[in-house]
Amino acid sequence: MADQSPARQATAGRRQRKQQETRRRLVNAARSQLSSGGIESVTISSVTEGADVAQGTFYNYFDSRDAIVDAVIYESVERLGQRLDALTAGMPDAAEIYSFSLRHLMNTAVSDPVWGWVMIRLGIAHDTLLRTLGPRAARDLQIGVDSGRFTIPDVSLAAAMTFGALLSAMQEYLEGRDREASATLYAEYLLRMAGIPAPEAHEIARRPLPPLPDVDDDLA
Amino acid sequence: MADQSPARQATAGRRQRKQQETRRRLVNAARSQLSSGGIESVTISSVTEGADVAQGTFYNYFDSRDAIVDAVIYESVERLGQRLDALTAGMPDAAEIYSFSLRHLMNTAVSDPVWGWVMIRLGIAHDTLLRTLGPRAARDLQIGVDSGRFTIPDVSLAAAMTFGALLSAMQEYLEGRDREASATLYAEYLLRMAGIPAPEAHEIARRPLPPLPDVDDDLA
Repeated sequence: MADQSPARQATAGRRQRKQQETRRRLVNAARSQLSSGGIESVTISSVTEGADVAQGTFYNYFDSRDAIVDAVIYESVERLGQRLDALTAGMPDAAEIYSFSLRHLMNTAVSDPVWGWVMIRLGIAHDTLLRTLGPRAARDLQIGVDSGRFTIPDVSLAAAMTFGALLSAMQEYLEGRDREASATLYAEYLLRMAGIPAPEAHEIARRPLPPLPDVDDDLA
Repeated sequence: MADQSPARQATAGRRQRKQQETRRRLVNAARSQLSSGGIESVTISSVTEGADVAQGTFYNYFDSRDAIVDAVIYESVERLGQRLDALTAGMPDAAEIYSFSLRHLMNTAVSDPVWGWVMIRLGIAHDTLLRTLGPRAARDLQIGVDSGRFTIPDVSLAAAMTFGALLSAMQEYLEGRDREASATLYAEYLLRMAGIPAPEAHEIARRPLPPLPDVDDDLA
């Protein structure tokens, strides 16, 4: 059994905090680099330089350049999930919750530089989305089923299809479609998929979109 | 102006045929390797060995290992498009055409070894699908709109979302879902997206699926 003396515990705690702080600085540096210079500009040396840590230290935290890019994207997606949770908590109508969430998802995906082409190029977008927002989508769809608002034979597949369809809608946008129109149509089609009749899906997808609230930065 | 004498033309023709034949042998070798050994086993030397051509020759045809893998996948997707065209030509109901096409698409995607994880991993699936099957999906959806069967505000986005949703459905299947059930649900959700009322979408997606016809190998 490990030595659990208070002094040892304090040392371990300090070391852990220091490690978390170094990891955070690396991820923040990678995010800045990604936002300002694009995916090609993110290299291990650009990240360690931005974080002001020794280059060799990088490998104590991440296996590769791609691994830290994944971490940046994962955090961005998870953050969006938390903001959507904050926005929709307490809203009464599952269809409206789903529609608002989809429109913000699409808007964020095409306006935040960490998202966009990066995700489509890396091919990791879908996994990341499923892992972070998938359970939330399944939860929101299930609430709709339980309240009789949605008629969905299989919540899990419908939730997954939400994210594949997002990648398609993002690509359409990036090829020149208007952002609001893309987000509205995306929500409208997925409301239909959830069993909302077409005229009602049309109306719900065009309701005024409340802004996303900020959330505290609690990602380690 | 180039010498257009009959002898020169014959020589140029022979050279072009020889080049097409070499390219075909390389692509066929890459496909065999991909099917039998998976994506990791496809190397430039395994491909040139399988095609029985000198290793240096490879670069006259493809820039990289990934380029020939892309060519194999592109051909597989294009071939499926041709088979779907042959199956559905002359069918009267746009909803049935779309449903049959989607179910075959899903079935092929998860049973042909060239598809499956390879596509999801490489992240090129979506581009390839949009390029080859996208125009066909847009055509079929437009026929449905013109005949009053579908109510789709925007055919282009709906067609694109078909393929993103496919990637999601494929991933669900690969994580353990039954193939027929995946294909049926996938079609059912997308029929709803196209404006078919839920009970009718349910019925259409479960009609007996006619087998895919073979088509002549006319891909150069």
